[in-house]
Amino acid sequence: MSEKIAIVGSGLIGRSWAVLFARGGYRVVLYDVKEELMTQAMEVVQAQLHSLHESNLLLGRDPAECYTRVSTSTFLSSAVEGALLLQECVPEDVELKRKVFSELDTLVSDTTILSSSTSCIVPSKFTETLSHRSNCIVSHPVNPPHYCPAVEIIPAPWTTDLAKDKTISIMKQIGMKPVVAKKECDGFILNRLQYAVLQESWRLVEDGVCDPQDIDTVMTSGLGLRWSFIGPFQTIHLNAPEGVTDYAERYSDGIVRVSKQFGEPRHMTGETLEKVREYVEGEVPMDKHKENLQWRDGVLKQLAVFKQSIPDKP
Amino acid sequence: MSEKIAIVGSGLIGRSWAVLFARGGYRVVLYDVKEELMTQAMEVVQAQLHSLHESNLLLGRDPAECYTRVSTSTFLSSAVEGALLLQECVPEDVELKRKVFSELDTLVSDTTILSSSTSCIVPSKFTETLSHRSNCIVSHPVNPPHYCPAVEIIPAPWTTDLAKDKTISIMKQIGMKPVVAKKECDGFILNRLQYAVLQESWRLVEDGVCDPQDIDTVMTSGLGLRWSFIGPFQTIHLNAPEGVTDYAERYSDGIVRVSKQFGEPRHMTGETLEKVREYVEGEVPMDKHKENLQWRDGVLKQLAVFKQSIPDKP
Repeated sequence: MSEKIAIVGSGLIGRSWAVLFARGGYRVVLYDVKEELMTQAMEVVQAQLHSLHESNLLLGRDPAECYTRVSTSTFLSSAVEGALLLQECVPEDVELKRKVFSELDTLVSDTTILSSSTSCIVPSKFTETLSHRSNCIVSHPVNPPHYCPAVEIIPAPWTTDLAKDKTISIMKQIGMKPVVAKKECDGFILNRLQYAVLQESWRLVEDGVCDPQDIDTVMTSGLGLRWSFIGPFQTIHLNAPEGVTDYAERYSDGIVRVSKQFGEPRHMTGETLEKVREYVEGEVPMDKHKENLQWRDGVLKQLAVFKQSIPDKP
Repeated sequence: MSEKIAIVGSGLIGRSWAVLFARGGYRVVLYDVKEELMTQAMEVVQAQLHSLHESNLLLGRDPAECYTRVSTSTFLSSAVEGALLLQECVPEDVELKRKVFSELDTLVSDTTILSSSTSCIVPSKFTETLSHRSNCIVSHPVNPPHYCPAVEIIPAPWTTDLAKDKTISIMKQIGMKPVVAKKECDGFILNRLQYAVLQESWRLVEDGVCDPQDIDTVMTSGLGLRWSFIGPFQTIHLNAPEGVTDYAERYSDGIVRVSKQFGEPRHMTGETLEKVREYVEGEVPMDKHKENLQWRDGVLKQLAVFKQSIPDKP
């Protein structure tokens, strides 16, 4: 029988994790406090499994067979019993994480990995006092994770290499792309890059260099096209005839000069926020926010399908 | 008869501009010093026109008809005579740009726009003393421009609104997506965003937070997927239930806190460069650099075709 994964919390992220672990061949027990939450969750899981299958994103598995491996429980102890890994998906509140992890700590075996989905709380903040703290780690997915496979793996200072390596291996098994921090880092990795872009974008608008739409255009019709399949480092390697050392020789001084002008971080408030709001609401009106989210996820799905068709590098 | 565009310099960028202006319905005269350079250029132009047509990226025009509108000249005065716009594509050297623009200044009419393809030199550096300086502007394309349609429009302090607006309108006519700076800015817009990401990526690797491949993965399997079709501002607008003001309220303090940790710009040298080089050359070996460039451009082409199929926003 395949190994078991416990998912603590049946919301948006918990449901997606259930689909992903099922896709990877695991048995999945979805835990939540109320039965009716999980009835709803199971419907979504079933629909997502079929949707992934139709797009050839189910790693060759049968959606019905995957679905049979997903069950639910309102008993935390039986949900986590014997689990290889448990994936916590409760709201982003450090006190709540502490409470949940303390309870989990009393229930899990010495080999179970306690993995949190938190997007911004470093694991030392809610695992320090636990008996099983060496098995605690963060596995932060991108939403929606079945189309955006990056997952940030953030160990606490006391997480063992064994727990980290097992987590990475499980994530690969379910078709995710682990991005591994060697140590805790405020904002993790993805958001630090996002914030670097957001801050410089904000300054350019606030300082009257360009309008908000110019930022989005330069990304969607320029930089973002490359970055959707080759990252920042491979991009610069290909942008100089003799590769990345050539690029560094040519451009490092200019990059440092320009970067020195970036200046202090800006708070996202005031007239600039108003300007950005006017632009984005013109493109994505609040009364169609939900439909536009579905549109975005639909495009991300198509993009995931597209990326499967990209030929291997020469 | 359709209006005329002069292209000064028949290298990689000049050839691409010839294709783009022909696609937009203009007559194009490609100028260079040697006849044989242009024979080669014309072959590339013809091949690119057919390739774009096959991918439905020629704005509905016939490639053979487009090609008949492209001619060459080794006489600068006749090449630029009567041109609506001339696009300069000589190497990135401010002295050379000054020399070329000074010569062009003596040849052009009072209505011709003098547009430079420079990627990094602000137009005031090579246009200040010209009689026609009010018609001078930068139109910086992304390579390859027929698949990455962003073009940065950078006016000098003395560029008239008329010249700027005409340039924007011509760029739209040929299927490009203008990104307009309201004033000169070191690094323009695209590279400032790229440098913000590169610098934070460099610091994360240099400070031992992650390996270079993690940077590329978090981009290609995370952030870059969204950014290939919705930019940084629309992304955050969709990442909070009540839109961008909600996002700003929730995250602005955290973004400022994290951004304050970014610290000083780093020079791209030493052990970190060696680490990055090892990674990128493992993925893209130098002896296959050229083939990988072709691979990248092929994927960008497929991505351009894919993006045409994205449904409109709700």
